[in-house]
Amino acid sequence: AAHGARKMEDYGRFLALLASTLLVGFVSVILSLVWVFHYREGLSWDGSPREFNWHPVLIITGFVFIQGIAIIVYRLPWTWKCSKLLMKFIHAGLNTIAMILAIVSMVAVFEFHNAKNIPNMYSLHSWIGLTAVIFYSLQLFLGFAVFLLPFAPVRLRAALMPIHVYSGLAIFATVIATALMGITEKLIFALKNPAYSTSPPEATLVNCLGVLLVIFGALILWMASRPHWKRPPAENAKILRPIGATPEGTEVESTMTNSSNADKSDLRSNTEAPRKQNIKFDEAGQRSTM
Amino acid sequence: AAHGARKMEDYGRFLALLASTLLVGFVSVILSLVWVFHYREGLSWDGSPREFNWHPVLIITGFVFIQGIAIIVYRLPWTWKCSKLLMKFIHAGLNTIAMILAIVSMVAVFEFHNAKNIPNMYSLHSWIGLTAVIFYSLQLFLGFAVFLLPFAPVRLRAALMPIHVYSGLAIFATVIATALMGITEKLIFALKNPAYSTSPPEATLVNCLGVLLVIFGALILWMASRPHWKRPPAENAKILRPIGATPEGTEVESTMTNSSNADKSDLRSNTEAPRKQNIKFDEAGQRSTM
Repeated sequence: AAHGARKMEDYGRFLALLASTLLVGFVSVILSLVWVFHYREGLSWDGSPREFNWHPVLIITGFVFIQGIAIIVYRLPWTWKCSKLLMKFIHAGLNTIAMILAIVSMVAVFEFHNAKNIPNMYSLHSWIGLTAVIFYSLQLFLGFAVFLLPFAPVRLRAALMPIHVYSGLAIFATVIATALMGITEKLIFALKNPAYSTSPPEATLVNCLGVLLVIFGALILWMASRPHWKRPPAENAKILRPIGATPEGTEVESTMTNSSNADKSDLRSNTEAPRKQNIKFDEAGQRSTM
Repeated sequence: AAHGARKMEDYGRFLALLASTLLVGFVSVILSLVWVFHYREGLSWDGSPREFNWHPVLIITGFVFIQGIAIIVYRLPWTWKCSKLLMKFIHAGLNTIAMILAIVSMVAVFEFHNAKNIPNMYSLHSWIGLTAVIFYSLQLFLGFAVFLLPFAPVRLRAALMPIHVYSGLAIFATVIATALMGITEKLIFALKNPAYSTSPPEATLVNCLGVLLVIFGALILWMASRPHWKRPPAENAKILRPIGATPEGTEVESTMTNSSNADKSDLRSNTEAPRKQNIKFDEAGQRSTM
């Protein structure tokens, strides 16, 4: 009973954090729209500053907010009754949307620069931002090939999962850092009279947007790195599958937090000989796709 | 034998990563000095731009490089024979040095701004940077009070350790993001003729410095989040202590990766009744200070 009560309390804490995260993300998207429509020229696709303005809006909506949700989508408790395969499609789908929005937002900047004869790719923001988009696309492609398609052997999935999780979180953090550089650049370039240094209302609003992006990132990374909020191993897989079998479609779930599954199960076999093979197998991170 | 061979291979991989990390950090410090001495005005403490120049040098040396080393100091295998208390003093000492250097580097900027009548604290860089220094100081103070002083009960240490680890890594990542904003600001302000957008050699050099900071951060976070590279539980504590006892000075070691120790040991007691109490206690993260 005490264990159940603690579980409920923990569930409540997760929901409160999730609600805060969604609120912070939602307000960030709103602030990017207020920035663009109230303080800047609005949105259109004509090579003018209105085309540039798609850049912050699409990055914050897609590359920050949607990517953040894609990262924690396995952690939503009401999805644990859905099949793992469905959740993978949702995870991959959200990341694909984020990638497309990020690419469109880059095209907006290149077209704006070219129309205005501003050089491309000279700033640290552009270097790290383009690198992040390239790594993100690679991550999506590799994730699709290894974890969604049914061809990769379990060992490969087990070996790549900690790298997939770490890369995902590292790219997400880098995207937020890049957004902060972008905000810094844009405020310095756009605010001339009054200047950024005189703290006009636009500067304060957009600084607050930057702070919200950091808070959003910190909340997502906290939720993604708590092992007790992980999707539990598929119970039915344990029951339906013969002991020790490795059916096709089996795959490995892990977080950056337990990447040493192989080592752990090795260590365990020295101390816990009587444990059942299928439980050990399952604890080592092998879980059904279904 | 196969297990031993894999352990050696893993040890080799750790050393290779550590060497790369030190190299990247070292080159970053060198590049900050090249920037300041070759392309800028050099260093002095007189309210001139030479005083400002202490800011990037001290931030990169202290708040990035030394903080990074402080984060992974428990993971160095040759320190595992040292007492835990000694390692805590080294961890706290390195972080204290980093904090002092960060504060001095902020004083340099404030004095430079005041001498030049440039407003303080208007930029997103300054907002997030000051917040990071405040959180870093709080983290250091709380870490000292809870984990170094012998007064905190084991339960409090166990509850706070995952938060301590997460905050440490989150602050470190935020510091690097703030450095990238600072680089962006400084290059835009300092490069006028030729401008940043024309990619003069100084811009390329300092962009490379920014990329190295991201790589340094990614390497530190990778090493800090691999559970199999953690300092192992103190063997002698297991032998010398009566089973189930909680001696004074006992404390909890964890990473962001196994913060659900309490939950895990609960789960385990259902499936692994025959395990010895002291092993379970130790695996749950309770380790001797000595």
